[in-house]
Amino acid sequence: MATTTIKDIAKALGLSPATVSRALQDSHEIGEATKKKVKELATQLNYQPNPYASSLRKRKSNTIAVVLPEVADSFFSLAINGIEAVAKDKGYHVLIYLTHESLLREEAILSEFKSGRVDGLLISVSEETTSGTHIKKVIDEGMPVVFFDRECDDVPTTKIVTNDLESSYLATTHLIKQGCKKIVYLCISPSLSISKNRVNGFNKAIEENKLTHSGVVACDKHFDNNIELVKKILSGKNRPDGIIASVEKLTPVVYLACRDLRLSIPTDIKLVSFTNLQTSLILNPPLTTITQPAFKMGEKAATILFKHLDKKKAALQNETIVIASELFIRQSSAKK
Amino acid sequence: MATTTIKDIAKALGLSPATVSRALQDSHEIGEATKKKVKELATQLNYQPNPYASSLRKRKSNTIAVVLPEVADSFFSLAINGIEAVAKDKGYHVLIYLTHESLLREEAILSEFKSGRVDGLLISVSEETTSGTHIKKVIDEGMPVVFFDRECDDVPTTKIVTNDLESSYLATTHLIKQGCKKIVYLCISPSLSISKNRVNGFNKAIEENKLTHSGVVACDKHFDNNIELVKKILSGKNRPDGIIASVEKLTPVVYLACRDLRLSIPTDIKLVSFTNLQTSLILNPPLTTITQPAFKMGEKAATILFKHLDKKKAALQNETIVIASELFIRQSSAKK
Repeated sequence: MATTTIKDIAKALGLSPATVSRALQDSHEIGEATKKKVKELATQLNYQPNPYASSLRKRKSNTIAVVLPEVADSFFSLAINGIEAVAKDKGYHVLIYLTHESLLREEAILSEFKSGRVDGLLISVSEETTSGTHIKKVIDEGMPVVFFDRECDDVPTTKIVTNDLESSYLATTHLIKQGCKKIVYLCISPSLSISKNRVNGFNKAIEENKLTHSGVVACDKHFDNNIELVKKILSGKNRPDGIIASVEKLTPVVYLACRDLRLSIPTDIKLVSFTNLQTSLILNPPLTTITQPAFKMGEKAATILFKHLDKKKAALQNETIVIASELFIRQSSAKK
Repeated sequence: MATTTIKDIAKALGLSPATVSRALQDSHEIGEATKKKVKELATQLNYQPNPYASSLRKRKSNTIAVVLPEVADSFFSLAINGIEAVAKDKGYHVLIYLTHESLLREEAILSEFKSGRVDGLLISVSEETTSGTHIKKVIDEGMPVVFFDRECDDVPTTKIVTNDLESSYLATTHLIKQGCKKIVYLCISPSLSISKNRVNGFNKAIEENKLTHSGVVACDKHFDNNIELVKKILSGKNRPDGIIASVEKLTPVVYLACRDLRLSIPTDIKLVSFTNLQTSLILNPPLTTITQPAFKMGEKAATILFKHLDKKKAALQNETIVIASELFIRQSSAKK
């Protein structure tokens, strides 16, 4: 953008840029007549001070960044709304950056935060992020960071998570109580801490109840591949009688695979999904869900970050705050 | 963030900041020995050049901004994916800003773009934005702007839209062909150009077919209020036999109101919604939709913006590019 610079004003008035800069900042080193002349021309030329230079001076940009994998998932869009609700009250801008599950993009985005672009960072890491070295680096450089949902074990800061292990255990024991004996757990992004916790909760319930023919199946990112995979699982010997879809985007996959095979949910297969979709209750049949406190998690992460920014404390506490998910029982897991 | 500045290096080496800056930029004005000394200390102190100062110099930030109302709507999250797919290929960062349908926030966000923070802007305006004065201002200051979906008539630049009038007309005539005689069109944000076009398409079909007891009803932003409103409409005399939900978030409202009143979709009421939700086909019953080309619209808007940035042309063409929406006919509008 061809904006007016201090240099332009200096040239037009035959002054040095330093004099113009000081005049614009009302420095006592500059005479009133010069100040008046500079300010008038600045107004005429629509001069805008560079907020980044100014934020470097003040070490403050009044902006926080939210870095997350995607927005085409209701958990993240609701979490953003929770974050923005707090930021709005504080008069902060929120910059949203998407990693699209790529560690390389996450690193590139974080390297943009040097030099005062943002005052703080809320992050939910990509599925490729198995170590938080790049996050520790920005913390070491003075940036306060709070994790929400997907975190890195090796980064000592505040983390807002939900009880993934317990809620996955709860979902699995619910299906067992409803009569399921062969349960398949559909998994994506197995390297994430939240995925591991959910798998552990599932395995715990399966072991406690000594179920055989139950286990974890890895899906990929392609809708059509996943439909084929689920149809293959449901067409084989020892057909499962229960499915846990560990992420939202697997929900339509299971419904459509069952429809193609003319299998009835819940008569043939019972289903529980991890999802925040508002349409869960108008699906055919209505879906039993583990619903994460997405808005609250975003709100809490932002509240802690702003409390820190207000107090300008040295470092955020290395603590993990757990907000519980809820099991909503609906028709998709009803007894026959 | 307490980062190393040019001043810090200058002080440590007893040089002027200008000399350090030129040394770091490999200026021929600076001797090799000095350059070496400066660069070594810069590396030691982990000095990071200020990308904004540098972008002011180059007039380039390698960043574009996307300003839109919200992400909790599948149209916008898919449009973002279309934009990011293009930006990734071009090596650009994408900053996403949400206005939450507030003109004040939209103006505040745009005023942040001065001084080279971003090279270009893709925008879908808030429902409060009835005039594009603030957008014309950033264009006048040299920022290239492309609209997608929600645009301002009074801003002469490139706009990527869909055929809202035609697709609303198509949805209405579809319901009429299916036997509906009393159709209610549920509307939100009536001041938006896209809303007006959709209402006009509805009214055109109603007038052509000389239907009485049909009309537009304004909803608000509260889920529960809207359920009560729709229940009231469906409980009155001359109960409608068809509903058009003009935005995604009204879909669950209609399903739940019908469920509460024990009215059957499509036997009692036929329904068409404007939505990009992937769950449309697994709802009870599967939903007839007008589906906007969200990904393609984002992709096209970004492609045009980057073509402009590559060529550094003076201004974007004042043209409107229309990508058609599609009607997907499913069970919710089936004949009795």
